[in-house]
Amino acid sequence: MITPPAKSTFSAAERAAVYRAMRSRRDVRADFISDEVPEDVLTRVLEAAHAAPSVGLSQPWRFIIVRDVATRRRVRAAFEEANGTAAIYDGARAELYAKLQLQGILEAPVNVCVVCDDDPQRGHGLGRQTMPETARYSTVCAIQNLWLAARVEELGVGWVSIIDPLVLHRILEIPAGLTVVAYLCIGYVRAFADEPDLARAGWETGLPLGEVVDRERYGSR
Amino acid sequence: MITPPAKSTFSAAERAAVYRAMRSRRDVRADFISDEVPEDVLTRVLEAAHAAPSVGLSQPWRFIIVRDVATRRRVRAAFEEANGTAAIYDGARAELYAKLQLQGILEAPVNVCVVCDDDPQRGHGLGRQTMPETARYSTVCAIQNLWLAARVEELGVGWVSIIDPLVLHRILEIPAGLTVVAYLCIGYVRAFADEPDLARAGWETGLPLGEVVDRERYGSR
Repeated sequence: MITPPAKSTFSAAERAAVYRAMRSRRDVRADFISDEVPEDVLTRVLEAAHAAPSVGLSQPWRFIIVRDVATRRRVRAAFEEANGTAAIYDGARAELYAKLQLQGILEAPVNVCVVCDDDPQRGHGLGRQTMPETARYSTVCAIQNLWLAARVEELGVGWVSIIDPLVLHRILEIPAGLTVVAYLCIGYVRAFADEPDLARAGWETGLPLGEVVDRERYGSR
Repeated sequence: MITPPAKSTFSAAERAAVYRAMRSRRDVRADFISDEVPEDVLTRVLEAAHAAPSVGLSQPWRFIIVRDVATRRRVRAAFEEANGTAAIYDGARAELYAKLQLQGILEAPVNVCVVCDDDPQRGHGLGRQTMPETARYSTVCAIQNLWLAARVEELGVGWVSIIDPLVLHRILEIPAGLTVVAYLCIGYVRAFADEPDLARAGWETGLPLGEVVDRERYGSR
């Protein structure tokens, strides 16, 4: 049974569009094409990120747009170095790992490094006395908004986590008081795959929702 | 200038719906009404969360749905206790803080505690050698999906961060190996405010986008 929302301000078609953006969003690595991303499109995507919730309205996120190829080559080298130690697998899984494409730093024309001010003056500390990590969580909310906005602009986004954040600090001149939360590769794509790359490659399968939902207390399922 | 996306699969109206969901999403505390949230609506919202990206396809998030009033009263008491020590302000700001409503634990008919498995077996560690915090970040991506799905279902969401996570572990029987990422209050609302509550109350103002965007290196702005 589908219950219609009370006093809807979103039509059924509009709700479906939002759900479709979420379902068809992919972590893109191998499918980038080199078409330029216009500044106005990138601005819309960053505006979406900037509309995210933040603890105490602190807006602790900062975005560094990287288009320069020389800079991206240095980041790519940092990925290669980290990937040497991240390849911890044996046997068949090592063979599978070697086949995965895990980044599109040079293939995507735009990269965005997302950093967080872990102790923002803005917001006056509201909500961070008990859970200081909420500044970083706010920054991740911004990233997910960015990812969904990119999807409806037909832009793929790939999050590179196989990299030493301290190397990114050096390359992008990020001060010590800030934390690198994500390094994102952004560009148009050949196509959005029906399934996550890691599912298609046989690396991992998705869980059914029932496996991650409890009622009233943890472990009820 | 508005550049249309290449090979659009989202119409202009569909893209606008996604952007409107993001812009009109609010952190709701004072505006909940008591109408029940039907199970099928809640399931759609949780399916949206479960469609989030996750490092290594590890899907480390777990959702505990709390409807029981006795349980929510205990959580509310935990908020009150934490809020006693979080009220660190003096003078005019202390008066302003005292007026803010910071949670809707009992007013919203559904609460969802979101926890994260920080060291999931699923995903085989991919992407977590260099940045183990990406498991929690994945969980926050799921929360932002939930928040936006709730918006198009006309449900408000309020994130309570003024609470001791260890007390939530006790109340909800969450094992030690898991981390509480968020405690969310969910329900239908009287209205979605035009601005964030903290902006309306004069606690903080929003930054223009230009203040949070750099080019090629940090600090270029």
